[in-house]
This record gives sequence, structure tokens and C-alpha cells, in this order.
Amino acid sequence: MARYVVDVMPKPEILDPQGKAVLGALPRLGFDGVLDVRQGKRFEVEVDGDASEETLAEVRKMAETLLSNPVIEDYSVSEHQP
Amino acid sequence: MARYVVDVMPKPEILDPQGKAVLGALPRLGFDGVLDVRQGKRFEVEVDGDASEETLAEVRKMAETLLSNPVIEDYSVSEHQP
Repeated sequence: MARYVVDVMPKPEILDPQGKAVLGALPRLGFDGVLDVRQGKRFEVEVDGDASEETLAEVRKMAETLLSNPVIEDYSVSEHQP
Repeated sequence: MARYVVDVMPKPEILDPQGKAVLGALPRLGFDGVLDVRQGKRFEVEVDGDASEETLAEVRKMAETLLSNPVIEDYSVSEHQP
């Protein structure tokens, strides 16, 4: 069984309202000096079989077609480090 | 300027409806052999000043108080690797 992490973040040029909402709330909770906050999604995907180039390529395809919206989001895939 | 990544995932014992929805959709898109999918949040937080034990501790407090719900979620904080 292989486990991968898919990180999906808004493209830098795309407005990130969730991140801005968090950025706005932090000073009200007493946290100063925060310059920016960006919020995205993190997936942990478990696939049958051992980690290999094939399983990595398969998870990349999942990221491209379902887990992210390539028009507004960037994604990266890595093997899960326990 | 220091940048940190905060990963927030549902605790293993907590039902993860978003992850289950993705798990259910993957076979319909032709992806077989997926055993499990868990979905969480990823934050990139930029703070003033250089990375230090103090800034790391500050971001941990943000994760504990605002970015995650410690009752149902686990979080981890790491320095952003560009």
C-alpha cells in the first residue's frame, strides 16, 4: 500500500478569499506581524500496491482531473512521509 | 520574512465526508485501486522577521486557536520548502 500527499493551492495571481479572511482575523486574536495567509487543500491518497512511477503518475492524473482545478489552482504530489 | 506551512487533517477516528466523496468519485473517472482518500486544509503563512523558534511557536498558536479545531483535527507546522 502506497500513500501520497496531494497539495492544492490557489495560483498566486488568483484572489484567495479564505486566506484573506484568516489574515484579517489573526490580529483580532492578538497575532501581529502576519504578512499573508493562503489557504488550500491537502489530500492523503492510499493506493493498492507499492509506491512506483506508475502509481505516482496515476495520482498525478487524479490531481489534474478531480482534486484540483488547473485553471485557478496549482498542485503538487509527493510520497507521504510518516 | 519567514514562511510556514500548516497542514490540518481530520483525526483518523473522525468521519471524513469530503474524503469519502472523492473516494467514491474516483472509480467513475476510471481510477481503480484507490484504498482511501482523506481531505484536509493546507495554509501557507508568511510572518515578519526571520524563521526562529519564536515565530514557529507563534504559528503553532495560530494553528491551535484559529486554523484547526483540535477536537476533530490534527495539525502540523513546518517551514515552507520553496
